[in-house]
Amino acid sequence: MFPPIREELRGLEPYGAPQLDVPVQLNTNENPYGPSEACVADIAASVAEAARGLHRYPDREHVALRTALADYLARDTPHGIAVEQVWAANGSNEVMLQLLQAFGGPGRSALSFAPTYSMYPEYARDTSTTWVQGRREGDFSLDLQAAAALVREHRPSVVLLPSPNNPTGTALPPEAVTVLCEAAASSEPQGLVVVDEAYGEFRREGVPSALELLPVHRNLVVTRTMSKAFAAAGLRLGYLAADPAICDAIRVVRLPYHLSAVTQAAALAALRHAPELLGKVDELRGERDRTVSWLREQGLQVADSDANFALFGTFADRHAVWQDLLERGVLVREVGPAGWLRVSIGTPAEMAAFRQALSDVLVREEGQP
Amino acid sequence: MFPPIREELRGLEPYGAPQLDVPVQLNTNENPYGPSEACVADIAASVAEAARGLHRYPDREHVALRTALADYLARDTPHGIAVEQVWAANGSNEVMLQLLQAFGGPGRSALSFAPTYSMYPEYARDTSTTWVQGRREGDFSLDLQAAAALVREHRPSVVLLPSPNNPTGTALPPEAVTVLCEAAASSEPQGLVVVDEAYGEFRREGVPSALELLPVHRNLVVTRTMSKAFAAAGLRLGYLAADPAICDAIRVVRLPYHLSAVTQAAALAALRHAPELLGKVDELRGERDRTVSWLREQGLQVADSDANFALFGTFADRHAVWQDLLERGVLVREVGPAGWLRVSIGTPAEMAAFRQALSDVLVREEGQP
Repeated sequence: MFPPIREELRGLEPYGAPQLDVPVQLNTNENPYGPSEACVADIAASVAEAARGLHRYPDREHVALRTALADYLARDTPHGIAVEQVWAANGSNEVMLQLLQAFGGPGRSALSFAPTYSMYPEYARDTSTTWVQGRREGDFSLDLQAAAALVREHRPSVVLLPSPNNPTGTALPPEAVTVLCEAAASSEPQGLVVVDEAYGEFRREGVPSALELLPVHRNLVVTRTMSKAFAAAGLRLGYLAADPAICDAIRVVRLPYHLSAVTQAAALAALRHAPELLGKVDELRGERDRTVSWLREQGLQVADSDANFALFGTFADRHAVWQDLLERGVLVREVGPAGWLRVSIGTPAEMAAFRQALSDVLVREEGQP
Repeated sequence: MFPPIREELRGLEPYGAPQLDVPVQLNTNENPYGPSEACVADIAASVAEAARGLHRYPDREHVALRTALADYLARDTPHGIAVEQVWAANGSNEVMLQLLQAFGGPGRSALSFAPTYSMYPEYARDTSTTWVQGRREGDFSLDLQAAAALVREHRPSVVLLPSPNNPTGTALPPEAVTVLCEAAASSEPQGLVVVDEAYGEFRREGVPSALELLPVHRNLVVTRTMSKAFAAAGLRLGYLAADPAICDAIRVVRLPYHLSAVTQAAALAALRHAPELLGKVDELRGERDRTVSWLREQGLQVADSDANFALFGTFADRHAVWQDLLERGVLVREVGPAGWLRVSIGTPAEMAAFRQALSDVLVREEGQP
């Protein structure tokens, strides 16, 4: 047998949306707005400065970057965030892998509630952590009492709670975090609750960040990314805020020098341009709300969304709809429960192209949904 | 118990040499020569170009980078290297982790021969792979028949063979690769033999790269890094060459978009400056040979080295010698078998400072060794 890959990995396809060269790319929840030339120039200058010392290893502790991330996060909580509470890695997927390496592993389990982000079971698989999957309600919300009972039953080491959820866009109410943190803290060793706020900056007015609850729940971890609202998917910078002892535990399993000098410099430069890079968030939220309304006007079901995407359906043959949209130059994502498709929120022109293409397809596929 | 870290990780210290601000840093085998301003400018321009699309995810397959790496590796083998044979990640430590995620794991084992690179058991631990450790001979070479017997006995999924070895500097003869690849191939599923050529470019004249043996042994993997000879430790770019089926297996476990657009752009720019960045290799080899000779003239034992460092000793209290050197502004590494220290090869001025400091220390510690 060659290659001698682990038995449970045989025949599996690598994770990832198709990377197709299509005019309207609305499939990976990227921010459609690129950086200004001023931002690009600052990133280049910062990388040049770092490159002068390229023969040296980077700061393993990435202190300057963690300090800047702590300052940024402090906007979302009245309690402040200390640098010792922050840890960063190459994308929030590396943050999640490190969390499961430190706190999961053989004989331990991780739990989430489907439909949810499809990488979660892969993090569990790749760390030999048992995967336990609860279910969300029909409207993709959580039944909190049932969810807490599941946590008490399985005593997972890590509960993964995206808010807003991907691919449904559903935000968690603060009481969900409290109920599940308390349920996870009741076992010994206690479980961690990871609230994945990859899309947190897109949440609607009045929806708080779980960062506010960090002083209350020591077993709470909040993760973020610069890939979405921050318009820096190409940078691969994810991070978390948590009790400093959790960061210390991650240090034991992180690969030394995991964040390059180039990444640290580029991320620091991007953070200096936060007002610009985040400047389109309000516009994207407006475009999202208009997209949701329009889809509903077409007679489609659409999940309430606090993110920069919308899950819509249902279609008897969603693959045919996906393919028909692709043929019209619009790439959306075939993901989530059977019958649903997910569209990322792009520019007004991109969303107009999406509406036009979908209208054509709906006419052609009359009778559906 | 908080934090609820895995039992076997409790109380462990994170891996990593002390990052101290000292005039003469000879502790992490960095190349002492930084890039030219022309190289820095090219890296900055390439990163600027990538940053214009920073809101988009990078090429998951990093095809342009793998193509450039394949071209670079082809210098070291008459058989050529195809892009499908190449895979890159954030440092060769991420390459190693991916290899053990795909081919190691619970119920499988990895084997190496001590003294060797102290991260290897950590890769095994972090992937729940059983760690099996053989021993090198007194001169740090391998007894091939004993080594092959150990492979046949334990049937490891991965054999880790650094050449040159770290921290001893010992290169493997080509027959060692052949004997161990054949021994590893005799089990079912067969084992992989990973020849870690992190320091490969520093090998002495006439010592071939294991790349030449790729067409002969399908279970052979050769890893490299841009951190050492390539003078780009701050870039964190490691890579491997192997059968394309091995790259396909790694794809299943790699985190999607693990290599940022910024990293890909900076590495491609650095590769365009390969003649400059590698231009100091001959000088460093000469400095190494002079350092080894000088150390022996002082009556010290020194391991033969094909790398950019030298292991020397032995000292009754190596920590005292390390500390005394540090007080004289020279940082070396306290690593390897008891009584030995490792010094990286720096500039002529740095090595003069090292010789002066060590002479002082040896006089003070008379009677030692």
